[in-house]
Amino acid sequence: MEFNLFKNNKIADFYIEETAFSGVKKITEKVSNDIYMVTGARPHIHKDIHVASELIIVGTVGKSAIIEQMNQQGKLDLSTILSKREVFSFQIVKQPLPNVEQALVIVGSDKRGTIYGLFHLSKRLGVSPFVDWCNVIPEKQMEIVFTKSDNVVSREPSVKLRGFFINDEWPAFGNWCMKNYGGFNAKAYEHVFELLLRLKGNYLWPAMWSARFQDDGPGLLNAKLADEYGIIMGMSHHEPCLRQGEEYKYLRGKDSIYGDAWNFRKNKEGITRFWQDGLKRSGKFENVITVGMRGEADTAILGKEATLADNIKLLLDVLKTQRSLIQENVNEDLSQVPRMIALYKEVEEFFYGNEEVEGLIGCKELEDVILMLCDDNFGNLRTLPTQEMRKHKGGYGMYYHFDYHGGPISYEWINSSYLPKIWEQMSMAYDFGIRDLWIVNVGDICTQEFPLSFFLDLAYDFEKWGTAAINQQENYARQWIKQQFHGIFNQDEQEKIYKILNGYTRIAHKRKPEAMNADIYHPVNERETKKTLEEIQMLLNLAEELYQKVSPKNLTAYFSLVYYPAVGILNLYKMQLLTGLNHYFAKLGVMIANDYAKEVANCLQRDCSLIEEYHTMDNGKFFGMGMSEHIGFTNWNEEGCQKPILMQVMPANKPRIIVMVEGTNQHVEGSAWHPNRLYLKDFLEPDICVASIALYNLSNLKADYTIKNNVEWLTCSMLNGTLDGEHCMEQIEIRIHRDKLVKDAKGEICITTPTGDCVIEIPAEKIDTKKWKHNTFFMQKDYISIEAEHYTECKPGREQSAFLCINDYGKTKSAMKVYPTTAYFTAGVDAPYLEYHFVVKEEGNYEAEFYMQPSNPVTPDNKILYAVSCNEEVIKVYNAIESGQKVGDYGYLWANGVLNNIRRRVQAIECKKGCNKLRIYAVTPGFVLEKLVIYPSGKKPPECFLGPAETYYVGRDK
Amino acid sequence: MEFNLFKNNKIADFYIEETAFSGVKKITEKVSNDIYMVTGARPHIHKDIHVASELIIVGTVGKSAIIEQMNQQGKLDLSTILSKREVFSFQIVKQPLPNVEQALVIVGSDKRGTIYGLFHLSKRLGVSPFVDWCNVIPEKQMEIVFTKSDNVVSREPSVKLRGFFINDEWPAFGNWCMKNYGGFNAKAYEHVFELLLRLKGNYLWPAMWSARFQDDGPGLLNAKLADEYGIIMGMSHHEPCLRQGEEYKYLRGKDSIYGDAWNFRKNKEGITRFWQDGLKRSGKFENVITVGMRGEADTAILGKEATLADNIKLLLDVLKTQRSLIQENVNEDLSQVPRMIALYKEVEEFFYGNEEVEGLIGCKELEDVILMLCDDNFGNLRTLPTQEMRKHKGGYGMYYHFDYHGGPISYEWINSSYLPKIWEQMSMAYDFGIRDLWIVNVGDICTQEFPLSFFLDLAYDFEKWGTAAINQQENYARQWIKQQFHGIFNQDEQEKIYKILNGYTRIAHKRKPEAMNADIYHPVNERETKKTLEEIQMLLNLAEELYQKVSPKNLTAYFSLVYYPAVGILNLYKMQLLTGLNHYFAKLGVMIANDYAKEVANCLQRDCSLIEEYHTMDNGKFFGMGMSEHIGFTNWNEEGCQKPILMQVMPANKPRIIVMVEGTNQHVEGSAWHPNRLYLKDFLEPDICVASIALYNLSNLKADYTIKNNVEWLTCSMLNGTLDGEHCMEQIEIRIHRDKLVKDAKGEICITTPTGDCVIEIPAEKIDTKKWKHNTFFMQKDYISIEAEHYTECKPGREQSAFLCINDYGKTKSAMKVYPTTAYFTAGVDAPYLEYHFVVKEEGNYEAEFYMQPSNPVTPDNKILYAVSCNEEVIKVYNAIESGQKVGDYGYLWANGVLNNIRRRVQAIECKKGCNKLRIYAVTPGFVLEKLVIYPSGKKPPECFLGPAETYYVGRDK
Repeated sequence: MEFNLFKNNKIADFYIEETAFSGVKKITEKVSNDIYMVTGARPHIHKDIHVASELIIVGTVGKSAIIEQMNQQGKLDLSTILSKREVFSFQIVKQPLPNVEQALVIVGSDKRGTIYGLFHLSKRLGVSPFVDWCNVIPEKQMEIVFTKSDNVVSREPSVKLRGFFINDEWPAFGNWCMKNYGGFNAKAYEHVFELLLRLKGNYLWPAMWSARFQDDGPGLLNAKLADEYGIIMGMSHHEPCLRQGEEYKYLRGKDSIYGDAWNFRKNKEGITRFWQDGLKRSGKFENVITVGMRGEADTAILGKEATLADNIKLLLDVLKTQRSLIQENVNEDLSQVPRMIALYKEVEEFFYGNEEVEGLIGCKELEDVILMLCDDNFGNLRTLPTQEMRKHKGGYGMYYHFDYHGGPISYEWINSSYLPKIWEQMSMAYDFGIRDLWIVNVGDICTQEFPLSFFLDLAYDFEKWGTAAINQQENYARQWIKQQFHGIFNQDEQEKIYKILNGYTRIAHKRKPEAMNADIYHPVNERETKKTLEEIQMLLNLAEELYQKVSPKNLTAYFSLVYYPAVGILNLYKMQLLTGLNHYFAKLGVMIANDYAKEVANCLQRDCSLIEEYHTMDNGKFFGMGMSEHIGFTNWNEEGCQKPILMQVMPANKPRIIVMVEGTNQHVEGSAWHPNRLYLKDFLEPDICVASIALYNLSNLKADYTIKNNVEWLTCSMLNGTLDGEHCMEQIEIRIHRDKLVKDAKGEICITTPTGDCVIEIPAEKIDTKKWKHNTFFMQKDYISIEAEHYTECKPGREQSAFLCINDYGKTKSAMKVYPTTAYFTAGVDAPYLEYHFVVKEEGNYEAEFYMQPSNPVTPDNKILYAVSCNEEVIKVYNAIESGQKVGDYGYLWANGVLNNIRRRVQAIECKKGCNKLRIYAVTPGFVLEKLVIYPSGKKPPECFLGPAETYYVGRDK
Repeated sequence: MEFNLFKNNKIADFYIEETAFSGVKKITEKVSNDIYMVTGARPHIHKDIHVASELIIVGTVGKSAIIEQMNQQGKLDLSTILSKREVFSFQIVKQPLPNVEQALVIVGSDKRGTIYGLFHLSKRLGVSPFVDWCNVIPEKQMEIVFTKSDNVVSREPSVKLRGFFINDEWPAFGNWCMKNYGGFNAKAYEHVFELLLRLKGNYLWPAMWSARFQDDGPGLLNAKLADEYGIIMGMSHHEPCLRQGEEYKYLRGKDSIYGDAWNFRKNKEGITRFWQDGLKRSGKFENVITVGMRGEADTAILGKEATLADNIKLLLDVLKTQRSLIQENVNEDLSQVPRMIALYKEVEEFFYGNEEVEGLIGCKELEDVILMLCDDNFGNLRTLPTQEMRKHKGGYGMYYHFDYHGGPISYEWINSSYLPKIWEQMSMAYDFGIRDLWIVNVGDICTQEFPLSFFLDLAYDFEKWGTAAINQQENYARQWIKQQFHGIFNQDEQEKIYKILNGYTRIAHKRKPEAMNADIYHPVNERETKKTLEEIQMLLNLAEELYQKVSPKNLTAYFSLVYYPAVGILNLYKMQLLTGLNHYFAKLGVMIANDYAKEVANCLQRDCSLIEEYHTMDNGKFFGMGMSEHIGFTNWNEEGCQKPILMQVMPANKPRIIVMVEGTNQHVEGSAWHPNRLYLKDFLEPDICVASIALYNLSNLKADYTIKNNVEWLTCSMLNGTLDGEHCMEQIEIRIHRDKLVKDAKGEICITTPTGDCVIEIPAEKIDTKKWKHNTFFMQKDYISIEAEHYTECKPGREQSAFLCINDYGKTKSAMKVYPTTAYFTAGVDAPYLEYHFVVKEEGNYEAEFYMQPSNPVTPDNKILYAVSCNEEVIKVYNAIESGQKVGDYGYLWANGVLNNIRRRVQAIECKKGCNKLRIYAVTPGFVLEKLVIYPSGKKPPECFLGPAETYYVGRDK
């Protein structure tokens, strides 16, 4: 049984009845156009049945006589979709009608079901969901034949309401709308709606800081178009009763019937009327009505002097009023009216109440209302429903952020979200019962296409991509890349795109580009700047290679989906890292600083030219989308934003050289008057064979150096040389020949510079690894650094609970998290644990620093507990949250966590000489361990952004 | 009675007997040449009497038959000089001899007396002591006639040994010697000796870090020449028995008769022999023999592990050995052999001992040895002889510094000594009985000519320039300028030179140029950078004006004595201050930062060109003398020295303006999201009528601003304008019209920038001054700042003791010090005190910060006490020295004091509402008060280098 959609240059037409939803008809036209793009032949859309060998029949249950007829004739089995949400059946039917030989029948259980079914056809043809949005041109096909194996009945989507929020629309989305469409009107939203539907979303919050969705259509055109397409409109979390904040701003006034105060106490009548008129006007469309109330423009409802009880009382009053208004103006039966209240920022506290004051939790006014919880604006969930709370009839929603305008630092320019983080957090949300509404703030949409696809796919099919699919984001990314670029790039090239997308988002995951500056990465310690710059350059080279290869017609797709966000972020990171080097070396007076300054200036220039290209590409298709501030935030908003300061060094008057041990901050000039001994400790790790020192010129003059090496088990790549104005830096490779090393030893290399001598002391040691278990670590340098996945034991807990490894989720490697994510444990009783083995040379007091994800507690008690025991002695329970830490507090604790995407806690441990066993137990949800650093008390390793690189362990050198 | 030295083109000749000192003969030749330069006629020097109308007869008591004869004939009265030290008689004698009509008779009581007498003649002719050293060409004269009033008998010099120390001779003095004379030889020293003698010095420590005075002549030529000229040679404080450290380095070795260890314990025989040979070789010349012993190269004699007792025991042994050696090899009668021991650095402790261990003080071995005390290397005396100690038979010496290589920061480049400081400290030394030996470290000599003149004149004639001559340094300077430039610059121009010399040394006195960097002066607070830059520019303009005027032949004199040191320091200061502005504004992202960067680069270029001119001037006469490192010390020695970092700012993407209140660190952009209120408090001071704010462009784009002023008693110099890439800063003058101000009031000025609004709040107040005594201060701003001389009462103490004002001695004005400087007092009993009146608006706890000279305690108990009482309540005694402070400690306390040339101590006081009276009593010597700052507890005024500018007081506006 085959259906020839396109064969021998003949294209199958559509048949769609007059009775069909107008939105379905419009989508059919879009799909018809998709088919045209793929085949070169445009199917007709017939409203009457005529003779045809092949026909695509599109209908919706309850809106199609012919579908009903096929069902009754047994040619179609509608039972698989009946009474389901947003489901479609996609079937090849033989002789569905007397004069039709074969049909591809696409039936939806409801309007959106049919639309998803239609776009399923496009997807099967290899059409990207971004065909319109990013001009992704599908691959041409000579023949399209469907077989029985293409028959499918879609699943009911996992999450009921799935969508995104266009937020803080200026300067990017605003300029884009104005230039291309003349306003925030239906011409602009046409594209947004199409994008949402193609991504299988159904829910949208429109732009609202300066725009009025209900007026800008012009008139109600926006709302009407949304309703036609089956888009369920929401308003942002602080805009109740289908009216936007901008509307009130627009309508208020001394003589306004709505009064002149956004204040339910002082202007109850006006506000009530404002809401009532909104419900009357827009209640007829498909909406999720926001209830509750916040202050104007995303602020608290009452002033700082108001008590919690005042706030709660007022909110209850508001909710009661709103219930009545909705019953009167939308539907007497409230169960038919989806409603939502956002537990955002201060509202979270009103909901839970405190010891003295009962919160809104469990109140009648909210019983059938979706409780929308929120992340902390930086992608970390806040409180989640407890088992008891999950019984709430109205269900739960989650407001998540890929983009944010606010503290500690705004990020609105470009995608900086990382799939494993979205997966880890949103899976947890789902596990905790948040399954009714998922909305993500995408700012201006553009450059968010990749994570937005994942977010909506995760919401649509949680079984496929959710908790069970741990470590499947890599596969997701590969599939997504194939979806966009299968006709554009070959397999190898697609793999390169994978490297680029994964690479740039992983770098952005460590710290968002807007939050980068010259003081984040340490310029020399652990070589972290150098290594990151190398990684960036590798990715930039890949992006450039594909840029050169891609054909002009496909440039828009490649540029907008891959090249621009990747190069944008990588170039910015590169600029800030180079600035760090410029400042570091400038402060030492080293001439190479001036070279870095030039490179920084080049990066700044590149940033401009890149955005310029983005804005002019494809007739300004993306005009405005690169306009957001992104360099050098000194404040949460763009006030004070500052480009890098370029530091210029003046040459010294006489030949002078600085000697540095690479990877450390040690540097000397070799003066006769000062200690001139440096330490190169790399060879204490038995698998390290090469290390390096570097010589830098402090003047533009010729400066000679000589190197003397006193042991035969070391060699240096050079033994003398000259620096000058051109050649102002030399890296000297030091190599150890362990075969010539009989026992532990100390070598010395003496470097003579124009101003004196300095000595590099180089200790080297051997380790008898046979004595120790796999993944046993050793205090060879002055600390041990352990990636969390390098445990020696991983012991399960109660009911198959266990720590699982989330690949590539740590800042330097992976992360360990307990599953199921909702479980609570008692350490030493039923808790899973990780056991780490490490050898120290001296017994005594040590400190263990835990590097964790900056997760927030799932309950308002402000606790994320874990437990630690050393050598099976007493188990101590610790709270990862420091006392005083508060989500959203711009001060040190929370803000530092979200900016650096890490939480670090130090705990004292006592160690014996020899091998020690450190156990780490799960206790409450939210504990995600990335790294563990152990060092003698008070002797913290040199500071660096990513933490010390992992030290040697048994098995590393295999 | 007239003596025609030069009249009608006829010159008087010299007569000097064969029996005269050869050194006197040589000096006569120099003076003859001086006369030639002045008159164009060269006197002959006759060895035989011949017929002459006018003759200059030169002789020394005991070396001249003719002088003896005149004495016996009653033509000359030698009784005035007989048995005196270094005295000369300068007399016109009628018919001294049968065939001589008139003679000018110059007789010395000894060799140096005669030489000083000869140079007295030169001086009378207007010949500068720097005629040779700096090529100061004397003014031509047509006639020189001496009258009776020129007769003079010189005084016995106040201090017996007066000289300087050429130290740390590389790179400056070393290169100068090598290039001009081929070594540290007699050709070079010829000029040094002449300089010393013309300045009436008699004592020299030669270069010794790489040079060997006794070998370099070549051979003994240096020593012989010194002896011939009557120069008493010393060795530096750590070079005993007439042998230099370099000699030992040169002679030591395995097979050396002197052994191979500078160690009196391990190599007693070798060291003893080394000393013995030195004494044998050089003991025949006039010397002050250094005794005692330190480690090699100016370090401690024993290692850190040695106890105080060990050190003292060893030193006693050394001293005994040296006594015997000197008796055996120089003179059995030790009283005929001047000897000196330096109580330098650690030796000070060996001398005083401690509670357990008796020091060397009072030991027999030292009884007839000059005890040489030392300053702290930064011009502040350390311990001084107590009344008891002043009885020491050997007397005392002082080793003072105008130049130093050591911590916290070396200063060797250029003169940075300030006459009032030299006067204050060296007068105190004399008052404390240090009258046998004054030696000053002048580094490479050059540029030290001005303070060196003062130092030697002070030592020569303490009655004229010492304690009694308080505030006479200005007169000294004017006289000195006249001495050098009377024929070169007119009176007005000489006054400009006074401004230049006083100006640059006063600036250097605040902080030495080598210790300047971009972080010293606050870039905006109190406008201290701006004001200093204005002062510098005024001085630079004066120096430039004279540079343009001076004739080519006099350029060397002007350039070396005035222009080079002044412009060198001022340009360096300017560079560092501009760098501070560059860094400050760069960090704010303000475009004007780039203009400052260019100016800094110009200053750096100027530094080079200036030194180049100095080095090439007059055939390289000063070659090498500008070579010392002087920019950006990061360490005490030049390792790490760094030129300013120039910070380059990149323009912001959109029009943005920063608003600042001048004189404060307040700045805002006027964002809608942040506090945007600034405060201009200048008008709280009733005599201030003009203040200013400044607007800075953050981009290169056109940025408009408008200013709204809400009160009629304020006017703004502009009410709107535009900044752009060229015109990137605007200063807005705010003027108060007090006539329109009825009572205390608050005005507001609102500034609209491209990104929002900001408000400047401007309070203004009146004060009814009639109510209060003169010099009453008011807490109008948030603090009171009082210059020490603005007391309301200055009450004398016991026996005419009183606080006296030392003009211009404070960093911002004068300083108050008690005289006599040796006195101790009991506060409230016999102590003089200063009483300050000030009015506060609220009673409560306040803090008073005392700004004092960083004097060191005169006794080893580490105390400089003063006492304070507020409103005649309890008198509290305070120690200006913080606990733990130690002279020479590179750490915070002492080092900060000498670098900033200030000591700041905070004391709590309780004030009542209204007028308070703060009394400050003298208790121990060394207390020198400059400024007093009073503020509510915990509310320290914004930090700045010079301290808050003085606030309003009754009488200021008169």
